Amino acid sequence: MDEYIRRLAEGSLKLYALEKELPPEEAVRVRRAFIEAETGTRLPAVGSFSIGIDRVVKRNIENMIGTVQVPLGVAGPILVNGEYAAARSCYIPLATTEGALVASVNRGCSLITRAGGADVRIMRDGMTRAPVFAARDVAHAREVVAWVEGHTEEIREAAESTTKHGEFLSATAYVAGTSVFVRLEFDTKDAMGMNMVTIASQKVGEVIERETGAHLVALSGNMCTDKKPAAINLIQGRGKTVVAGVRLTETMVADLLKTDAETLAEVNYRKNLVGSARAASFGFNAHAANVIAAIFIACGQDAAHVVEGSSAITTVDRVSGGVYVSVTLPSLPVGTVGGGTSIDTQRECLAMLGVAGGGDPPGVHAKAFAEIVAAGVLAGELSLLGALAAQHLARAHQDHGRG
Amino acid sequence: MDEYIRRLAEGSLKLYALEKELPPEEAVRVRRAFIEAETGTRLPAVGSFSIGIDRVVKRNIENMIGTVQVPLGVAGPILVNGEYAAARSCYIPLATTEGALVASVNRGCSLITRAGGADVRIMRDGMTRAPVFAARDVAHAREVVAWVEGHTEEIREAAESTTKHGEFLSATAYVAGTSVFVRLEFDTKDAMGMNMVTIASQKVGEVIERETGAHLVALSGNMCTDKKPAAINLIQGRGKTVVAGVRLTETMVADLLKTDAETLAEVNYRKNLVGSARAASFGFNAHAANVIAAIFIACGQDAAHVVEGSSAITTVDRVSGGVYVSVTLPSLPVGTVGGGTSIDTQRECLAMLGVAGGGDPPGVHAKAFAEIVAAGVLAGELSLLGALAAQHLARAHQDHGRG
Amino acid sequence: MDEYIRRLAEGSLKLYALEKELPPEEAVRVRRAFIEAETGTRLPAVGSFSIGIDRVVKRNIENMIGTVQVPLGVAGPILVNGEYAAARSCYIPLATTEGALVASVNRGCSLITRAGGADVRIMRDGMTRAPVFAARDVAHAREVVAWVEGHTEEIREAAESTTKHGEFLSATAYVAGTSVFVRLEFDTKDAMGMNMVTIASQKVGEVIERETGAHLVALSGNMCTDKKPAAINLIQGRGKTVVAGVRLTETMVADLLKTDAETLAEVNYRKNLVGSARAASFGFNAHAANVIAAIFIACGQDAAHVVEGSSAITTVDRVSGGVYVSVTLPSLPVGTVGGGTSIDTQRECLAMLGVAGGGDPPGVHAKAFAEIVAAGVLAGELSLLGALAAQHLARAHQDHGRG
Amino acid sequence: MDEYIRRLAEGSLKLYALEKELPPEEAVRVRRAFIEAETGTRLPAVGSFSIGIDRVVKRNIENMIGTVQVPLGVAGPILVNGEYAAARSCYIPLATTEGALVASVNRGCSLITRAGGADVRIMRDGMTRAPVFAARDVAHAREVVAWVEGHTEEIREAAESTTKHGEFLSATAYVAGTSVFVRLEFDTKDAMGMNMVTIASQKVGEVIERETGAHLVALSGNMCTDKKPAAINLIQGRGKTVVAGVRLTETMVADLLKTDAETLAEVNYRKNLVGSARAASFGFNAHAANVIAAIFIACGQDAAHVVEGSSAITTVDRVSGGVYVSVTLPSLPVGTVGGGTSIDTQRECLAMLGVAGGGDPPGVHAKAFAEIVAAGVLAGELSLLGALAAQHLARAHQDHGRG
Repeated sequence: MDEYIRRLAEGSLKLYALEKELPPEEAVRVRRAFIEAETGTRLPAVGSFSIGIDRVVKRNIENMIGTVQVPLGVAGPILVNGEYAAARSCYIPLATTEGALVASVNRGCSLITRAGGADVRIMRDGMTRAPVFAARDVAHAREVVAWVEGHTEEIREAAESTTKHGEFLSATAYVAGTSVFVRLEFDTKDAMGMNMVTIASQKVGEVIERETGAHLVALSGNMCTDKKPAAINLIQGRGKTVVAGVRLTETMVADLLKTDAETLAEVNYRKNLVGSARAASFGFNAHAANVIAAIFIACGQDAAHVVEGSSAITTVDRVSGGVYVSVTLPSLPVGTVGGGTSIDTQRECLAMLGVAGGGDPPGVHAKAFAEIVAAGVLAGELSLLGALAAQHLARAHQDHGRG
Repeated sequence: MDEYIRRLAEGSLKLYALEKELPPEEAVRVRRAFIEAETGTRLPAVGSFSIGIDRVVKRNIENMIGTVQVPLGVAGPILVNGEYAAARSCYIPLATTEGALVASVNRGCSLITRAGGADVRIMRDGMTRAPVFAARDVAHAREVVAWVEGHTEEIREAAESTTKHGEFLSATAYVAGTSVFVRLEFDTKDAMGMNMVTIASQKVGEVIERETGAHLVALSGNMCTDKKPAAINLIQGRGKTVVAGVRLTETMVADLLKTDAETLAEVNYRKNLVGSARAASFGFNAHAANVIAAIFIACGQDAAHVVEGSSAITTVDRVSGGVYVSVTLPSLPVGTVGGGTSIDTQRECLAMLGVAGGGDPPGVHAKAFAEIVAAGVLAGELSLLGALAAQHLARAHQDHGRG
Repeated sequence: MDEYIRRLAEGSLKLYALEKELPPEEAVRVRRAFIEAETGTRLPAVGSFSIGIDRVVKRNIENMIGTVQVPLGVAGPILVNGEYAAARSCYIPLATTEGALVASVNRGCSLITRAGGADVRIMRDGMTRAPVFAARDVAHAREVVAWVEGHTEEIREAAESTTKHGEFLSATAYVAGTSVFVRLEFDTKDAMGMNMVTIASQKVGEVIERETGAHLVALSGNMCTDKKPAAINLIQGRGKTVVAGVRLTETMVADLLKTDAETLAEVNYRKNLVGSARAASFGFNAHAANVIAAIFIACGQDAAHVVEGSSAITTVDRVSGGVYVSVTLPSLPVGTVGGGTSIDTQRECLAMLGVAGGGDPPGVHAKAFAEIVAAGVLAGELSLLGALAAQHLARAHQDHGRG
Repeated sequence: MDEYIRRLAEGSLKLYALEKELPPEEAVRVRRAFIEAETGTRLPAVGSFSIGIDRVVKRNIENMIGTVQVPLGVAGPILVNGEYAAARSCYIPLATTEGALVASVNRGCSLITRAGGADVRIMRDGMTRAPVFAARDVAHAREVVAWVEGHTEEIREAAESTTKHGEFLSATAYVAGTSVFVRLEFDTKDAMGMNMVTIASQKVGEVIERETGAHLVALSGNMCTDKKPAAINLIQGRGKTVVAGVRLTETMVADLLKTDAETLAEVNYRKNLVGSARAASFGFNAHAANVIAAIFIACGQDAAHVVEGSSAITTVDRVSGGVYVSVTLPSLPVGTVGGGTSIDTQRECLAMLGVAGGGDPPGVHAKAFAEIVAAGVLAGELSLLGALAAQHLARAHQDHGRG
């Protein structure tokens, strides 16, 4: 150990190169010891992990020194009436450090289940990547657009030559001055699919560059748009576009949320619709990101994709005898293979939902998972809106009790 | 064990009530066994945790069944020239499952360190909550605004009566029809501060309700704006507004990024500025959310706050002899006390950075941490922009027969 | 005439220089003749104007060849219950070429008047300009912000030295990398105030440049934000922030709009709130821009400012016995002096509203005008929402066999 | 006259009904006299119009009392190298009251012409309307989407049965909870096309309602999006998506703009890109709305459509020996037939550009007009950016003792 640490300290051994000389567990231990020395700290908790790391150090992380343990709770059971998660009763795994979140989602799950379950439907499905090209001038930019529009089959061939799982869906060109963005969309089945799509885009980018003479400036030109809040995703979707809804009677609202339909609708109207409009927000919901973050960390999803998920729209329609509450997630990038999905703890969480690994036919696991996430977000919205409404109602009563 | 599981199954014992009858470790074990039975899965990895959970089950999670282990790597050293993290050389802890992320940030850290470190400054600091009130009509709404504008001291008193750490900064009223939103801003010192601010807002809300007769509809009216992408945060800031920058010579760009200043600037221009504009995005960066998510999970921050962090702006200025590259994070909510910061593994990550627990004077740990996060984001941006530029340059050379 | 045309044709006389050699009417005639010749068209209608142009050619336009005549109609009377237009019954002048617009607004005016008038309140008032400076680096940018925050009085003095009408209100600094934007806000009284504010900003810009060493890159750095849809205006206001509202009983809704309160609220909810959210819009209204454009052209306002006006939020609250309908115009830049307000036809339109020229005390005319505009927009929203709702209701009845 | 005024005053004659009893000129005179009496003002200028109003009172306005005369100037000649306006030298008519605007555009026209003209290309063309339907629940919403996706031909037939000019292009369904928005897109040839599209949408809406059982709530559900700033238009286009660009050498920049390429690029970078990003704007330009408003008023376009036009993106690329400057107008709704295009003065303005009335084949006039508008906007951008840059350069020189 000391020898390695000496070499690391003097710079003759690079920190990331430890795995080339040592087995993973050993490399991680040496690196941690080195970091402890360098930072003058002790890292015993970080070092006390129990997951298998042979694949992890190859696929999921570099310069590993251990793991961070995120508390895991469950909410449920929740009845999901999707097309892929059909009549499925689930316990939703939530990895979070924010007290009260699991309890809140749990309350929403009870309500949904009592109401007969959440209807969930996937409206659209496609992962995107949009390389950007530099054209010589505006006329050239127009030619590039025309080439893309006229050569869908060449683009498909180039794209699909790089993947045996992904299916090319469409290519759309957008221009801003001399910059041409080509948004490529794929069905990536059970994978979240960013890697697959990036590799395919590289190939397509080279074809477009060769055929049109426009320079491929960057494989991602931010019209993808990955991990930034962007209207293009909100409108057109990226990953799964999922909608979940549930009908609640006045009795259910009163019993489980301690409020009434009218108050619930008013809270949603003033907060999620008018308030978000006034803040110039791209998110019209109460706390969709909380639920998505907790499920994503539990299930080995890319945590930075919480960004896209936060552009949800929550609605509360007054209907005869109660309310119909819904959440719309325009852009939910999820997968059950690849990324962090095969790490021991994360895989167990996916398994709890019956969606670990690839589905048969391919794609059904990721779709079922997306439906469950949407139902979970609906549970979270119901619970928080209900809590706000109950307080409002209580104060309103008080106010009228004095009047 | 079997007895508890029987009672859980028949519903006479609630899942969340186990901690009332059993010590934490035991409660978690029984609950996990119950979930295993209910879902027909085995959860050994989830169950093999090593963190202490006595406080965790009280403060961080409900219905706990174990932990999720997220691989932890380090990037660095990176030299940070902030006001709070001044001339500090750090190893940045990154908890992620996305391969290549740590390596990428690491490359950026090397570059920044070689360039003499990242300048970082906090431009603004304040955590917000904005309750929404219903006025009777437009004239009443105007009166509520006038009351808020004319009674800052009453508001301050009410707010500060609820907290011994937080300091009231300002109250701003916004109207949309009959809805009045009062955005309250606080200095929450070393805490991220959402809870503190929410409690203070409750008190302030009651005062405003009592004094103006407007109804407090919801403690959060979405002009806060919490965990949704919102222009109000992007513009006015929420949490810390932090900016980091570094000057790179042509030689550094060539040696470490394998590209040149002109190409680097062009990639940023077409992708991060023009591309984001064309996508109607609130984020003008390459992948700020990746770095923020990884640090946040490592350091016990609220992972749903990655949403706000993703509205970063990255710039590449051409300057004499090279480039000046910067990232601006308008809305970075961070803390070194509260939330998940005291869980064993997360606390070790904060300790590695020298910012665990409360600072002296209060606030300096959270500020130093924010500066380090910004430097880390800058490292990530540099590395990814450099990679894209290097590919672009390589193709351009090839194209011109220079390759 | 021919001599001038010959010189224009050969280039020895510049088109814009005609006024230097000829009286205005003559210059305009020659120029028109030249354009007729150059374009091979006849322009008799353009040439048949009746307004006095001595001031017009000096202040409002260059290269004048005549006028465009825009049909002018009136809607009203409408009762406005503002603070500045208090209990005022108005006929609103609307210059438009879009058939049915005046009729629609007219219907809304009747309804508002029958309902006892529109409540209108100005929530905020201030015209802005935001020069952008280039700092050397991030640390320098922080210093510039600190200087601005610490030298309000110097900024006020510099600003107010350039104007005898405008009053400096505030200076707020925003940073993005090395760019520092200083948003200066002024009370410009009865003027819309862009020119006044631009001149003052020039002076302030020079002071900041001198004192901080940051370069003044552009007098407008687009955080003003002028004539572009921008969240900063929507949130913070620019020009007047005005809100108008009216309470309608079920009977009024039935009699004048041929629909009912519930349907009216549903149309607003699905269209103006949910639909705009789904389109990632900054405007949550039906057609505010139509009414604003028509009044602005009639009253000599800057027609490009229709952009800001379109970010209106329309709400329909269900209240006991009916609805409360409101419009919120966050950013309405208007004036009754300067710009096109003194042209003969435009001045008559302002006079019709009792707001021509400067008010006493200064500012009250522009404020009264803003209140009237808001009431007019409310009339337009009511009428269009009502028409949509009536159709919806008719179909719903038909569908249920009640038709 | 007195008799009519008496009847108007007592309410036995409605203001809008005058045309039923009197010839247009007479009706307008009586109405004006009535308004003069009611408002206690004199309106001689408004009454001194010269346009023919027989069609105007039928098609363009109700309750007419006269006209507003907007000063008309010309900028040019400008050489336009479009596909429809090919190698065409134009004088652009600008109706405005903002002094200096025509002069500014004029300077840009000179520069463009000297540079060999502006390249202009139309990237997309389609006018949209998006009715909103209420589905029973989320599952029903999914069925409506499926129906729309599977019945393009039925939709086309219904749509095209209502128009002999318009051509159906596409129908795209978007869902938010129980609301389904169907965005219908048409080629409306030389008409701006809103009316045509609205009528077709009514028919399509009825078909969808009948076939799916979803209720047609409103003919416009704001995903159209008409006259509101909306990302959906910015991204996907509405009306014409037009891009104009021009290459300028260092010499041209120095001679005509009194600055240099580097400074011009810096102003655009810090103001139009970074500044707009920091303001959370949907417009990345200097003053596109100014030019569009002035042309629109001159040429009988719908002035409220200035809103859409303001979402332009202006870029300044550094290229060998100078700069390439462009403007991208994602959403430019224009027409040369219908609306205000046939009013005498407006028609003359269109004729000056060679685009009055319908083209042969249909559509080419509107397309040529769109190209000219884009070139005009480019001229305006160049001129204003140049003016800002020249000031910046002057100060920079001074600062460096070079002045």
